[in-house]
Amino acid sequence: MPNKFEAEFLNKVLPLLKTSANVIIPPGDDCAGVKIDGANKILLLASDQIIGNVHYFQNSTPPEKVGAKLLKRNLSDIAAMGGKGLYALVNIANGGCDSDYLYRFMQGINEEAGKYDILIIGGDTGHFVAGSSAQSSSLVASLTIIGEADEQKVACRQNAQDGDLIFITGTVGESLANEHHLNFTPRLQEGQFLTENNFSCCMMDISDGLLLDLKRMCRLSNISAKINLSHLPLRNKELNYKQISCGEDYELLFAVPRERTEILKQTWKSDFAPLTCIGEFIKNNEVEIYDQNNNIITTGDLGYEH
Amino acid sequence: MPNKFEAEFLNKVLPLLKTSANVIIPPGDDCAGVKIDGANKILLLASDQIIGNVHYFQNSTPPEKVGAKLLKRNLSDIAAMGGKGLYALVNIANGGCDSDYLYRFMQGINEEAGKYDILIIGGDTGHFVAGSSAQSSSLVASLTIIGEADEQKVACRQNAQDGDLIFITGTVGESLANEHHLNFTPRLQEGQFLTENNFSCCMMDISDGLLLDLKRMCRLSNISAKINLSHLPLRNKELNYKQISCGEDYELLFAVPRERTEILKQTWKSDFAPLTCIGEFIKNNEVEIYDQNNNIITTGDLGYEH
Repeated sequence: MPNKFEAEFLNKVLPLLKTSANVIIPPGDDCAGVKIDGANKILLLASDQIIGNVHYFQNSTPPEKVGAKLLKRNLSDIAAMGGKGLYALVNIANGGCDSDYLYRFMQGINEEAGKYDILIIGGDTGHFVAGSSAQSSSLVASLTIIGEADEQKVACRQNAQDGDLIFITGTVGESLANEHHLNFTPRLQEGQFLTENNFSCCMMDISDGLLLDLKRMCRLSNISAKINLSHLPLRNKELNYKQISCGEDYELLFAVPRERTEILKQTWKSDFAPLTCIGEFIKNNEVEIYDQNNNIITTGDLGYEH
Repeated sequence: MPNKFEAEFLNKVLPLLKTSANVIIPPGDDCAGVKIDGANKILLLASDQIIGNVHYFQNSTPPEKVGAKLLKRNLSDIAAMGGKGLYALVNIANGGCDSDYLYRFMQGINEEAGKYDILIIGGDTGHFVAGSSAQSSSLVASLTIIGEADEQKVACRQNAQDGDLIFITGTVGESLANEHHLNFTPRLQEGQFLTENNFSCCMMDISDGLLLDLKRMCRLSNISAKINLSHLPLRNKELNYKQISCGEDYELLFAVPRERTEILKQTWKSDFAPLTCIGEFIKNNEVEIYDQNNNIITTGDLGYEH
C-alpha cells in the first residue's frame, strides 16, 4: 500500500481500537506486548506479510528466500523489542503458484525457523486470482510471530531521553540492489544483549529508511535528534545520506544513556553486527533531525512522512 | 486453494515442522495450544484469512460483513476448543479497494471484536495487483486470534471415545444461499459451557461440511460414527443429507459421554443454539460413517476427502 494511503488509513483506524491494562505495548511499535495471567514474561506479537512483486520478484527470487524473508521480517520486529521468538503461524493466499513453489517457500520458512528455535504451529491456505494474464502468478503470505520479553527490560520506540546517544547496528542503504533485503540476519542476539544488560530501552528496526524511522522514534519520544551524516555506516561507500531511504535494512536503531556507552563498546561481542554511534537525542521545542551543522534534515525528501 | 491441492501441500509440509513439549495442541486442530512459562492457562492460536470472490462477493458483500466474517471465522476456532478469545492481529493485502472500503472492513472487525472483548493489537497493510481487468479490485486479509483455555479442559478433535454420543449445535446446510456464512454467531458461550462443565473434551467447528468434518474427527480419534440421517437439523427442511456439504456452518460438532447426556440436555441454556444428538461413536476396525441402517456413507460424494 502506498505509504500515504497507509498512513491515512491507520490514522482513521487506530482511534477505533480499544485497549486494556494488559496491553503493555499498544499498536504502533514493532510488536504489541501483552500480559498473560501468571506468565513470567510479556508476550510479544507481530504480524507481517510478503507480497509477490512488492517484496520480492515473483519470477526470479528463489521461493526459499521469499519464505525466509517473511520469517526474518517478523523476527526483526521481535529483535527490536529485545525479545526472543517462540512460535509462528503462516497464512498463504496462493495466486497460481504451483505446489513445488509453495513447498520450497515453506521449506525456506522452516529452515530459518530452525536457526532461531521458532516452531511453526498453524496457519491457513487459500487461493486468489492474480495478475493480468493467464501466465502470471503471485503470492500473498502472512506470518504472525509470537515471542516473549522481560516486562522490565523490553524496549519501546518512545523511551529516548535527552542526551542519549543514537546507535545503529550494521550498515544502511541499497538493500534492494545488493539483495540485503533477502539475505539479512535479524539482530536478535544484539537486541537481547542490549536490553538484558540495560544498554537500551528504546529501540526499533530500520525498515523504511534510517532517517524516516529515526523521525518516528523522535515523535513518539517527543524529542529531536542530531546526527553526524559523515558517521553513517553506509553499505556502499559511494552513497550519500539521501540515498539510504530505500528501507529494508532490518538493522537496529537504538538510544543508549551517555554514561553506558563506553562499557557498551567494550562489551560488544565480536560476532555481533558492527556498532556505530551516529548522533544524540536533544530536547528542544521541536521534533526535528539536525545534521552536524545544526541544519534541519527534511525527511520529506527521503520518503513519505507520517 | 482447491481442497485436493491443499491436502497434498499439507501432507508434504506438516512432516517438516518441529514441535516441543510446550506445544500441547499441535497443528491439525482448530487452534494450536501452547504452554507459556508461569501462565495459568494455555494459549490458543489460530490464523485464518478471507479472500475476495472466494469467501465473499467483492462487489456486493458489504465490507463490514467481510470484516466481521474474518473475525468470526477465527472465533469459531476458539469456540471449538472451549476457549476464550483475547487479542487479534489483522493483515490487509489490498488489491485496489478504496480507503472507504477498507475503513468499513476494519469497522466490521472492530464492532464484532467489541461484542466478544477481543482487542485488536497489531497488523500490517500492503498492496497487490488484483484481477484481470483494470476495474477489478480484491482483498486478501488475514487475522490471527489469540485466546486461552484451561489445559485440563481444552477440547481437541482426537478425544472421541467408543459410546460417546455425537451432538451438534444449530442447523446445517445452505450456508451460502441464505447468507448464514456472513451472519453466523461463533459458538463461544456454548463451547465454554461444554468444556467447563465436563460435557465434552472432543470438539471441532463445522467449516467444510458436517460429514467431512465428522470423518476427520473419526480419523483423529481412530473411531467410527453412526449417525441417524433423519435426525440432522437442516437449515432448510427441504434439504437432504447430500446437500449439506457446502460448509461454512460454523456450528460445533462434539462428543459427549453417554452418562452425561441427560444432564447436558437439562442444563443447556435457553439462549444457546439448539442442541441435537445426531448419532454415536462406535469402535470397530474401520474409520467410517454409517447411517441408521448401517450403510457406509461415502463422504467422497460430499467434498474432497483428506
